[in-house]
Formats: sequence, C-alpha cells, structure tokens
Amino acid sequence: MRPQVLIIGCGFGGLEAARALSGAGADVDITVVDKTNHHLFQPLLYQVATAGLSAPSIAAPARHLFRHQRNVTTLLGEVVAIDAAAHTVTLKDGALLRWDHLIVAAGATHSYFGRDDWARHAPGLKTLDDAFEIRRRVLMAFEAAEREEDPTRRAALMQFVVVGGGPTGVELAGTLAEIARHTLPGEFRRIDPRQARVLLVEGGARVLQAMPERLSERAREQLTALGVDVRLNARVTGIDADGLDITTTAGAERLQSHCVVWAAGVAASPLGRALADATGCTLDRAGRVVVEPDLSLPGHADIQVIGDLAAAQSHLPGREPRPVPGVSPGAKQMGRCAAANLQRRLRGEATAPFRYRDYGNLATIGRHSAVVDLGTPIGPLRFSGYAAWLFWLFAHVYFLIGFRNRFVVLLDWAWAYWTHDRNARVVAQKP
Amino acid sequence: MRPQVLIIGCGFGGLEAARALSGAGADVDITVVDKTNHHLFQPLLYQVATAGLSAPSIAAPARHLFRHQRNVTTLLGEVVAIDAAAHTVTLKDGALLRWDHLIVAAGATHSYFGRDDWARHAPGLKTLDDAFEIRRRVLMAFEAAEREEDPTRRAALMQFVVVGGGPTGVELAGTLAEIARHTLPGEFRRIDPRQARVLLVEGGARVLQAMPERLSERAREQLTALGVDVRLNARVTGIDADGLDITTTAGAERLQSHCVVWAAGVAASPLGRALADATGCTLDRAGRVVVEPDLSLPGHADIQVIGDLAAAQSHLPGREPRPVPGVSPGAKQMGRCAAANLQRRLRGEATAPFRYRDYGNLATIGRHSAVVDLGTPIGPLRFSGYAAWLFWLFAHVYFLIGFRNRFVVLLDWAWAYWTHDRNARVVAQKP
Repeated sequence: MRPQVLIIGCGFGGLEAARALSGAGADVDITVVDKTNHHLFQPLLYQVATAGLSAPSIAAPARHLFRHQRNVTTLLGEVVAIDAAAHTVTLKDGALLRWDHLIVAAGATHSYFGRDDWARHAPGLKTLDDAFEIRRRVLMAFEAAEREEDPTRRAALMQFVVVGGGPTGVELAGTLAEIARHTLPGEFRRIDPRQARVLLVEGGARVLQAMPERLSERAREQLTALGVDVRLNARVTGIDADGLDITTTAGAERLQSHCVVWAAGVAASPLGRALADATGCTLDRAGRVVVEPDLSLPGHADIQVIGDLAAAQSHLPGREPRPVPGVSPGAKQMGRCAAANLQRRLRGEATAPFRYRDYGNLATIGRHSAVVDLGTPIGPLRFSGYAAWLFWLFAHVYFLIGFRNRFVVLLDWAWAYWTHDRNARVVAQKP
Repeated sequence: MRPQVLIIGCGFGGLEAARALSGAGADVDITVVDKTNHHLFQPLLYQVATAGLSAPSIAAPARHLFRHQRNVTTLLGEVVAIDAAAHTVTLKDGALLRWDHLIVAAGATHSYFGRDDWARHAPGLKTLDDAFEIRRRVLMAFEAAEREEDPTRRAALMQFVVVGGGPTGVELAGTLAEIARHTLPGEFRRIDPRQARVLLVEGGARVLQAMPERLSERAREQLTALGVDVRLNARVTGIDADGLDITTTAGAERLQSHCVVWAAGVAASPLGRALADATGCTLDRAGRVVVEPDLSLPGHADIQVIGDLAAAQSHLPGREPRPVPGVSPGAKQMGRCAAANLQRRLRGEATAPFRYRDYGNLATIGRHSAVVDLGTPIGPLRFSGYAAWLFWLFAHVYFLIGFRNRFVVLLDWAWAYWTHDRNARVVAQKP
C-alpha cells in the first residue's frame, strides 16, 4: 500500500502541497480534508464583502481543482482532534481518518484579543460567510439610513468603521469610500450617500506596517484623498451594537456606527492547540505552531505544519533565520517545501530547511491607487499610484485559480470600472 | 402635493407598474417597498439552486433599477398590515407609510397543503435563500455520500426527489440529472455520481399541465432520456428527514432521500389575508384576492392587486372571462394595466378591464431539450427538442433585467455548455 498522506485544509498551503505531490515522482495517496467545499482566493475576499464580485468568482470547489489528479481524494469535514501516536485524526462527526504522513494547513481565524464579545458587533473577514455578513451590514446600513428620519441616528447609520490598518483594512476602507462616493449616489432619494463617513482605526503609528514607511505614508494620503478618515495610534477599548470607543493621544472618543468591520487581529486555527495537546509542541503568542527548519514538528518527522498556522522561519544561506510573513506566497512556498521534504523522507534522504523567497508586498487602496514594494535582484522596486494599481490588478487576476474565474473577474472589473456599478449588491436575507 | 402611489413588492408586477408610471404623463410620486433589496428573475432561480448561475446574475438591486426614474423612492421593509380607511400600511418595524393609491404586488409563497412540518425537510424555491439552501443540500448530499461506507445509506444520499411536475419541478429534476451525469463524474473517488437517482413525483396524470398533452408527453420522454424517474398520479403522504412516502395506483411506497425539493404548491402572500381583514374582500382557495375586472378591489377603487396575489380574470372582447395563469408575463401585463387604470382614474376617466395576452408557455428539460407552446395570430405553434431549447435560451436571456446580467448569463451558459462545468458550486456554510 502506498503511503497515505493527509492534508488538513485546502487553502493556499494545502492546495499547493497536494499539487506538488502529483506526477510520477509522488508515489503516495493523498486525502485533502477541508471544512468547506471550496478553495478560497482570500486576497479578493474583500471584494465579495463590498459587493464587487460574486462568491463563485473567487471560490472554486476543492474537488474540481483536483479532478485530474487521480491520487487525491477530497473530503468535506472538520478535523477536531489529532492523535500522533495512533496516526489518526478525528472529524467533528466522529469519523476517523488514518495517515502515514500529516500536513496541517488549517490556516488562521480572527482574534479579538480576548474580547470575543466584540465579534458579534464587528465581524471579521476570513470566510465567504463573513463576506456575506459584511456585505449585508454595509448595504442594510444605507437602506436603514434612507428610512431613518432622525438626523443623528441617520448619521450613525452612515458612519462605517474599519478596525485595523493592514492590507485588508486598507482595501475595505478604500472600497467603502468608493461605494459611497461613486456607486450609490443617484439611487437614494432621502439621503446623499456621499455624506457617508468611513473611518480606519489603526493601533500603530502607520498603516500597512509590513511596507516601507514611505509607502505607508502614500497609502495614508491616498486613503485621505478618497475621503477615509484615518486614525493612527488609536486603541479600541470597547465595541457594542451602536459603535465603538477608542483611545488616542487626544484622549477617549466615541464613534457611533452600526457597521464596524474587524480587520485587526489574526489568531491561528484552534488545530494548533489540538496539535500541542497531541505532541507537546510549542505555540507562539498568536497560537501558531513552532516548527523545525524543515517545517516538521519537533520529534514528529511525519507531521508538518504550513501556512498561517505555522510559526516558521526562513533559512537563507549565510543569513539569520527570519520569520515568514502570513501571506499567500509564504503559504504556497511552504506547501511546496513540505511536499519536497516528504518525498525526500520517503526516499531516505535528509530534508531541507524552508527558504522563503520574498517577492514583495502590494495593497490596493481604491480605483487607480495602490502601493507596491517588490524585491528584485538589483534591490527593492517601490512605486505607488496608477501604475501600482495596474500592477496589482494583473497580479491578482494572474494568480486567481482557474481560467474561467480570471476571465469573469476581469469582466466584472471592466464593467465596474466604466460604470462605477458593483454587480453583486444583492442580499439574500430578509432585513 | 402629487398623488402618493405605494407599490408593495418589486417582482415582475410591481416593477412593471412603477416603470409604467414614469414620464410626463405620470404626475405621481411612487414608493416601492419590498422585503428584499432586489428584483429577482424567478424563471432562472432554479439555476442558482443547481449551481449554474451565481445570485447576482439573476438579481438586481431594486433601487438600481429605478435610479433614473426620479419619481420613485425605493424602501426596504416588510408590510404586515394595511389600513384601507386611514390610507396607510404598517411595516414590521412599526413604521407607517401613507398612500393615496395602493398597488399590492406581494406575490406568492410555497404551500404545503396544511403540512407546514414538511417545509423543513423539503424546501421550496421562491427566494435566493431558498435557492442557496437547495444548492447546499444537493452538493452536501454528494459530499456525504463520498464519505459514507454503508451502501444503503450511500444510495439514500444519492437519491434526489423533486415533488411537483410544473415547470420548476421539471427544470430542477432535469438539471439535477445532468449534474449527476455530466458535471460531477471524475471529481469523486469513492462514489460514481452517475449512479445518483433523480425522481420527479407528480400528483396529476402528466407533467407541465398548463401545456398541451402532446408536449407534456414529450417532456416526460425527455426527462426519462436524461435518467429522471417520473412518477405520475403519485400523492405525497408524508415527508421526514430520511425520505418521503407516496401513494400511487400501485400502492404505498417509501422513497429514501436526504434531499427532497418542493415544487408542488403555491399559496398567495399572507398580505392577501391582511387585505381581506382590511377591506372584506374575497380570497379564493389559494388565498388569492378576487379583484374587479380593472384589477381594483370591490368598493376600493384606490387599491389594486396584481400578479400572483390576484385571482384576476382576462376580459377579452366577445369571450368569456378566463382566469389569468400565475406566470411572469401575466404579472407584467397586470402591472401595466394597473398603472394605466390609475392614470385614467386621476384624469377622471373610466377604467378598462384587464386583458391577458397569452404568448404561450415554455419549459426547459435539460441540455438541448425544451418544450414550447406559442400563441400566434395564425394559431398555436408547438415544438420540442433542440430548436425549443434554443428558443428557451434566447427568450430567457432577452427578458433578463439589465444588459450586464444578460451578458454574464450567456457567458456562464456558454462556459457550462462546452465544459459541462457549473461555476457556482460553492457553499458558504460549514457542514
């Protein structure tokens, strides 16, 4: 019987690991188990949340992606426990899956820094369900404002707050400002959507902290030009159904809002805790699993952890190990490295340490503006504005899974570009 | 102040009435209130349920459709009570809306013939939420079958039952058979989706009873050729979580299934009851409001009822009045008639009786097959098969609201046609 490889999670890491184990060199049977039926192109999830794209444009059924890879079996199920000694995992419904080699790529979820009661008032953005909920709240706030006669309550309904100035927060805030300014005007009779306010609340001294300082400043300028009120060094102290409390250098402030989006904290999947219980491995402060240089667990060469769940280091020759950022290229590269190390192990060879190749960073802020920071052989290439936006556009379409999705996304964007319309402004639920 | 027209519902009837009240001849202010934020192209809803189209392709935000019609205000809200004397309606949240003239176009919902406990086990198909639920059940049944090891339970998971042989039931059953035969094979490793069984259970002696007998027979043949097991004269006597009980001429039978779809009964919106309470008007057996020839309520010239909520008659000169079928052309024509009669009343003229122009009937059964029954000046034109399917295709794309939707739908269909793929096979919810 061929070695049984179990991959938990079909995000960028799990998908890439499974793909790298295809072909003649990979004499293994693979099972990919995921709690949803689709691989999600998360970098564009904010566009589903802001009604620019429909869900099928950025999500492909996992089993469809593996249909031609005959050594992959796709299963729908949620792993709740791992037994490293018995070589099994337990699914939520009690079923057991056996493995000879385990790759855990379960990803990350939101973290409210211990304030889980905030989740209800400020949804995060990790799944399609999250995106639909944010879409519903944004559109319903404008609907409620059109019906509201009290000017104070109306202003609160038209105030949107995004917490967290990373790429997702910046993209959400920029898009919300564009919707208010360009998409909705003309469709309401009692309110003027252009009077909506969008605030971006960031705890640090600048947005996009993974970027060079100059690009952070550019991003802040571009957000401000779009009408976003950027609050830096602002700490959230409370969130409730009517708004949030923040503390800045100027003191405490209350922001009235019925639509707060949480893009601030990321925590590893609870499977990190399950792994620690099963193997005694160490978790870092964010709940991520500390792995060996070759991405395996200490003392468990047959278990690898990759993607956002792993606290991995990059081991470039002649340099100090450096932490790998939680971005999709990192997860993909770890997926390929884990597959290669598994094959080395099966051949009885020594495994190789993970080396992260940093292609750079990019974030879009709205129509015609983005910031790009690329690593090139001759040094960093940094630019912003229109050229950066075009670069962002094609990079994202290029990396979207599957030809059809790319084409439909380009079509949707072309349509949105010329008409300012957003075609997915549909909310299934009743108010 | 201009007369205030309130339209309840933004389906085919309400949308058409509002549009007909535009321009110089319509010196009125219109408010359209709907409990969802979108107009839904219901004839293609079964394609959302069967993962062929994404929701935004067949749903457009109501206020977007009215953006250039300056005398229309769109409001999101659910009307729960009507006061004919005070000229108001009450929304679910307690708000009051005033009107001088009221057009009620609240449509229809499912009827389980008094067995509302069946709803949980056999969802109907009227809203986007319904479509997502059916999509989820269909796709999850195959996912569960892939994980099921007991052959009996696996067979039950791969048995799909559609109750009701009208156009929706026929279209659903045909599409489910196509998914099992053409879309999913190759993507599963433990089951063969082609072994899925699709049953269509119809209480009457033939499917598509609004069609001529010959076309019903053609439709049955085409369904059978697709692999659908058509059960005629079959009465449903019970539905539970594991399947349903039917009685046929051959006796009682139990059908195991975890995915039963209800396409059998239609009942008028509960607003019919509210109208009867408010005005003493008569309801027919299906809960529809019996209206005057000009679509107004007896004794209430300022209230009109149109679409699926109205038990309306067509008054063609020199013929007996005939009931209007519950189809979208009927609702649209009533919308235009109601608008014209309202304008006549405002000018002090006599109103005109409603005349239904029957353009015919069509239903698709699957790839390459459909049945068409057209009324033409020189008599009925009836055909089936490939030509009928092409006719169905272009008729539906032509009538889809909005240029963009038409184009994207055509693109999706072209893609699905060549690849047998269905792009919307995405389920947001966890299992």
